[in-house]
Amino acid sequence: MRLIAFQHEGHAALGARLGEDVVALADVVPGLPQDPVQALAALGLPAAAPGLAAKLEAAPRRPLRSVTLLPAVPRPGKIICIGLNYALHAKEGNNPIPDYPAVFFRGATSLAAHGEALLRPKASDKFDYEAELAIVIGQRARHLTEAEALTCVAGYTCMNEGSVRDYQRKSGQWTIGKNFDRTGGLGPEIVTPDELPQGPNALRITSRLNDETMQDSHTSDMIFSVPRILAILSEVMTLEPGDVIATGTPSGVGYARKPPVFMKDGDVMEIEIEGIGVLSNPVRDEA
Amino acid sequence: MRLIAFQHEGHAALGARLGEDVVALADVVPGLPQDPVQALAALGLPAAAPGLAAKLEAAPRRPLRSVTLLPAVPRPGKIICIGLNYALHAKEGNNPIPDYPAVFFRGATSLAAHGEALLRPKASDKFDYEAELAIVIGQRARHLTEAEALTCVAGYTCMNEGSVRDYQRKSGQWTIGKNFDRTGGLGPEIVTPDELPQGPNALRITSRLNDETMQDSHTSDMIFSVPRILAILSEVMTLEPGDVIATGTPSGVGYARKPPVFMKDGDVMEIEIEGIGVLSNPVRDEA
Repeated sequence: MRLIAFQHEGHAALGARLGEDVVALADVVPGLPQDPVQALAALGLPAAAPGLAAKLEAAPRRPLRSVTLLPAVPRPGKIICIGLNYALHAKEGNNPIPDYPAVFFRGATSLAAHGEALLRPKASDKFDYEAELAIVIGQRARHLTEAEALTCVAGYTCMNEGSVRDYQRKSGQWTIGKNFDRTGGLGPEIVTPDELPQGPNALRITSRLNDETMQDSHTSDMIFSVPRILAILSEVMTLEPGDVIATGTPSGVGYARKPPVFMKDGDVMEIEIEGIGVLSNPVRDEA
Repeated sequence: MRLIAFQHEGHAALGARLGEDVVALADVVPGLPQDPVQALAALGLPAAAPGLAAKLEAAPRRPLRSVTLLPAVPRPGKIICIGLNYALHAKEGNNPIPDYPAVFFRGATSLAAHGEALLRPKASDKFDYEAELAIVIGQRARHLTEAEALTCVAGYTCMNEGSVRDYQRKSGQWTIGKNFDRTGGLGPEIVTPDELPQGPNALRITSRLNDETMQDSHTSDMIFSVPRILAILSEVMTLEPGDVIATGTPSGVGYARKPPVFMKDGDVMEIEIEGIGVLSNPVRDEA
């Protein structure tokens, strides 16, 4: 199943994509809360995905092109980001291979939907892309073992974990450079685990700036795998339905290139992950 | 006005404290959303505070002791924390005086209400306190000047920005040590600016562990004042109603003492800020 968040009758809603059409999940599950995070909590993913998918065919449809997409999760409780999770990316920034992941958070105000413009802020011309596999949580979870960790995952989506590099380095804490308004693309859709039988760590991940490939790697190259990340994070905090975890970016980011490359007004940035989809965003200067 | 968040008929609600009683604001403002963050957005604070206060006297009351308090904002959109914002605290940890604040986020799962037990996690015995003045946002704001910054503030409360020191230093990013479940006290109540005519940077701030004073400082000693913090953060991101900003802790934290002092099961930790109140939390080992 491929879940999308979209603007529906004046509020954010959760839907499923069927080809070029969208089904509102509230039309399939009576009493489903409108809010996408609450809807994710109520659906019981990932276990419920196959049963739910079977009910979609009979539901009323509307054309995908007629709806306004929102970030795959518009208002996550937490957006947890893992830094330096690919060895070659750690190396390109002259960072050692970590034995514990670097973790920082983004806020929902930093997100953009698939197709929506990413904003290069007035304050900086060092706006960089980061292709990342993002996990969306479906079940409340704490103290997960690696063996059981994937049972809490509602699905996976693409993230462009856009980073303003000079602000990222204003202090030792990266958070501020990761939280400019609408700098992080999330979407286009949440793909449930039953659609990815190879699992999250067997996927090619690429990024393209104006059709030129900038990053080309594989999620099998992660230093901390998806189950390991879930075990590490849930030792510390309760993961809740709708929480998003960005799992780090491979090598090829703009700041480490010679000469450096940054996103600017008029660019188009795409993140593609095998089996998940293509997240595409134009880039605009902040007004 | 002194606002509290409390459990009311099965959901989180926003109220006002009048002496030993509580008024549910939904009884005063027709159509006010239940959710405290949405209620804060609807109220129009700080401008609306005096008018609202005048209506409280006639509203139905219930005894404060009969309600279950929640963190002053139970589910903030963002919990933004400033590190090293008092010169003596930077010095006690051998950190330089910053020229740009260190910023990291906490998640709502890390919060505890006034009176609720803070949890010393299984994973660590390095659970430290941090007394902080917390700002609660009342108006959506971006690109604030320092001169206008306080117009977005709904009020102020106390935070114990509890920190698990060994996890805080597992990588260069502090976030993970700041996000163990229920390690951060927030409350007891949000005091609107009209009740603090001296402003947020003229307040004594202290902390006590089992009645012994551990921190004793003054918010006038902040390196980055409250208006400056709001200007710096809003250059980067939209501040939204219900967002919480913890403004950093003064010297006297546990890890920097000789010998170090950490919180343990059975302790009682209090944060007191002049004109705002006392946040008190017992400490319990995670079960």
